[in-house]
Amino acid sequence: MLSKNQQKTLKALATKKERRLTGQFLVQGEKNVLELLNSSLELVSLFVTETFADKHFKFLATRPIHIVNEEELSKVSSITSNNAAIAIVKQPVFELGEMSGVVLALDDVNDPGNLGTIIRLADWYGIEHLVLSQQTADVYNPKTISATMGAFTRVKTYRTDLKAFLNKQSKPIWGAFLDGQSIHDCSAPTDMIIVLGNESHGISKEISELVTDKITIPKYGQSESLNVAMATGIILDNVRRTQS
Amino acid sequence: MLSKNQQKTLKALATKKERRLTGQFLVQGEKNVLELLNSSLELVSLFVTETFADKHFKFLATRPIHIVNEEELSKVSSITSNNAAIAIVKQPVFELGEMSGVVLALDDVNDPGNLGTIIRLADWYGIEHLVLSQQTADVYNPKTISATMGAFTRVKTYRTDLKAFLNKQSKPIWGAFLDGQSIHDCSAPTDMIIVLGNESHGISKEISELVTDKITIPKYGQSESLNVAMATGIILDNVRRTQS
Repeated sequence: MLSKNQQKTLKALATKKERRLTGQFLVQGEKNVLELLNSSLELVSLFVTETFADKHFKFLATRPIHIVNEEELSKVSSITSNNAAIAIVKQPVFELGEMSGVVLALDDVNDPGNLGTIIRLADWYGIEHLVLSQQTADVYNPKTISATMGAFTRVKTYRTDLKAFLNKQSKPIWGAFLDGQSIHDCSAPTDMIIVLGNESHGISKEISELVTDKITIPKYGQSESLNVAMATGIILDNVRRTQS
Repeated sequence: MLSKNQQKTLKALATKKERRLTGQFLVQGEKNVLELLNSSLELVSLFVTETFADKHFKFLATRPIHIVNEEELSKVSSITSNNAAIAIVKQPVFELGEMSGVVLALDDVNDPGNLGTIIRLADWYGIEHLVLSQQTADVYNPKTISATMGAFTRVKTYRTDLKAFLNKQSKPIWGAFLDGQSIHDCSAPTDMIIVLGNESHGISKEISELVTDKITIPKYGQSESLNVAMATGIILDNVRRTQS
């Protein structure tokens, strides 16, 4: 049974303001909660249905769990069709330091779903670090977490002044544009940064001045553009293909 | 001003039943309606706001247009935030015949958004023909049309018995699996079929028996899977890269 206070807390954490105030966020749904329980992220509290508890009791032994019924759980969920579990989790804090390998950087990617898909892709392609401009969507938005399909537990994100960050780098900085060099003709270095831009405006002027290599995904037909998450997937595949 | 009957017709075409009964579908939003007006698809009627009509009058000269206000238009729209235009359009019928080049085939892709994204990708990669199993989502679902970003005017789709269709083919049939050969090690032929499967179950057993080459997108990290539309984009990019 959820108390009025618990209901209020869960509802409030769907808002950015409350997430910022508390430094906490929600993880919802069976797949994402299981990934959470297998990670080192710090659990504040966990609300699960009896079905979920029975199925996954071995992960729950020492956890601060509350059993609730499906109807209660659905009511407080901020994603569609969650009838399994909701967790309140402490937001991890990562310090920007030396980063080797491929680093992904997002210049004002606005849509939480796109951000979540990009985190899932980073995880597929073995990319550990994701640097976000101040205006990029919130990693801890329920839609973002949901779209990561568990990858939020593995990819480290850093929200920072992207211009200042890129200014300090000496490695190649690739940027995705509609008029760059074909990615099919590029060979990716081991250490590099790849910048993707905003859904409507692409990479901003001040960031584009810091890009060392303008790349593009070659087009064989007529669509005007690709979605930014799709472009990220195709670029990362080309990068890994030419590195190996 | 929209009559009660016009409102009813527009609302009804958001349902599969009505689309099947009438052989018509809706195209909504500025971008998709403009692409429609630049295509040879047969317009039944067109409802536009005055703003849209003023901005695009040169495309509207001889069209059967009705001017409506934004509020009315929003009310009958089945996609979010449409304040520009809605068209009723006749569904084109394409006859399955000889198809050269790369043909894409979908084995029960369920989600209309995924289908729309795949149509957009097919258009980007210059693929003209998309063969759909009977259980694949409806091309004329408003969510599908919306996600194509205009590509529905260029890519030809064929709904058919996929098994019977593949049985008749003599060209290579590639299928995307989690345990196939790395797509980075494959060279794509000029004439071929690529099969993508259902979001949860992948390619069905009976279709997988007809696949001549099992391929996979190599994974460098830990995500369990990629979304089917994402996988389509990455595979098509590899195909075009190795054909050229």
